[in-house]
Amino acid sequence: MMRIDIISAVPDSLASILNTSIMKRAQDRELVEIVVHNLRDYAFNKHKQIDDKPFGGGAGMLLKVEPFFECIGKIQSERDYDHIVFTTPKGRVYEQTDANKFSLAKNIIIIAGHYKGIDDRVRERFATDEISIGNFVLSGGELLALVIADSIVRLIPGVLNDGESALTDSFMDGMKVEAPYYTRPSEYKGMKVPDVLLSGHDKKIKEWKEEQSKVLTEIWKKNNTME
Amino acid sequence: MMRIDIISAVPDSLASILNTSIMKRAQDRELVEIVVHNLRDYAFNKHKQIDDKPFGGGAGMLLKVEPFFECIGKIQSERDYDHIVFTTPKGRVYEQTDANKFSLAKNIIIIAGHYKGIDDRVRERFATDEISIGNFVLSGGELLALVIADSIVRLIPGVLNDGESALTDSFMDGMKVEAPYYTRPSEYKGMKVPDVLLSGHDKKIKEWKEEQSKVLTEIWKKNNTME
Repeated sequence: MMRIDIISAVPDSLASILNTSIMKRAQDRELVEIVVHNLRDYAFNKHKQIDDKPFGGGAGMLLKVEPFFECIGKIQSERDYDHIVFTTPKGRVYEQTDANKFSLAKNIIIIAGHYKGIDDRVRERFATDEISIGNFVLSGGELLALVIADSIVRLIPGVLNDGESALTDSFMDGMKVEAPYYTRPSEYKGMKVPDVLLSGHDKKIKEWKEEQSKVLTEIWKKNNTME
Repeated sequence: MMRIDIISAVPDSLASILNTSIMKRAQDRELVEIVVHNLRDYAFNKHKQIDDKPFGGGAGMLLKVEPFFECIGKIQSERDYDHIVFTTPKGRVYEQTDANKFSLAKNIIIIAGHYKGIDDRVRERFATDEISIGNFVLSGGELLALVIADSIVRLIPGVLNDGESALTDSFMDGMKVEAPYYTRPSEYKGMKVPDVLLSGHDKKIKEWKEEQSKVLTEIWKKNNTME
């Protein structure tokens, strides 16, 4: 069974995503074990201090080096980890190829940055992968840690049911965007489902989907070319 | 006070992120009101059915058109919304410029897709913005809805404390990555903080940070150029 350890300074924020929907099912089926570590449990002094001001000045607080060394050291002493993933704005932007790679691992640690970031020595010593969610700013790395965990877990064989097969999703097959979907009723408030989808003509449906997919993929690429 | 309405088929998954850290503080300070709507509450029939098979075949279930029209119609009858944001793999990839724009709005609806997606007529009728988290696959749009909400809320004046100022964060100023951060102790397990940061020499510290930032920004850009 795959194991994912998440280290966070605000572990309470992770609970409801980890305990609903596909994440819950994957754990119920014993296809993955997800363990959340509260960074504060590894703080040194009696005040349980985990943050401090940055050297050289500047606004904001940093997460201290010692609690991470303690926590990661303890976890690593118990089993081997294939990846120690840091969530940081400085990392490469997360992609499906990363999810595919991580999903083949046995054990993974995901470290959620928070506040202004983490003392850089933690990254220097432990990081095997530095991942960013994109070029925008979040309050902490918790949401990205959940994003990474979700994208991995859904790839573990047995997690998705037949009808949820990951194989036809947009992006699984490179940068391909899927055709629009419609379900019943075929007409609602004057809005009709495209006739071809109701035709029962498999070949025409396939051609329509491919054409739509091609057009939408071109639009997506045009909208998402980095300047 | 800004209001954010999130519509989801798995609303329970949203609770812990919305009720911790900066999201909690922003609501406690009455700087934002966040209301989660359970799509199932707007289902038509007695079975509370919200999903159905796609026309034209294919794996997976779609979220039906009627509950969204009911829910959005009800919310819109109560107040005006500046944006109705759809989370979809087909959208443009989320960027800080979107967060900046949304943070200036009075009221926003964020719609989290789930399963195979949403009947496309909902998008056609209501979407003002179609947002993707990037080119990877998640189980649903809930995490992206939370990402969007978080990135907006932290920009509302009064949400961040002085020490958390958003202004120096990576990406707030275009694609600029910040220099590494360090805090006490200055030496830990043989790993030393760069001397310049301990020098107390403001000009040299500033120069070092700018040089590091420049180098890391170049690396980031190189790692994140779309092929």
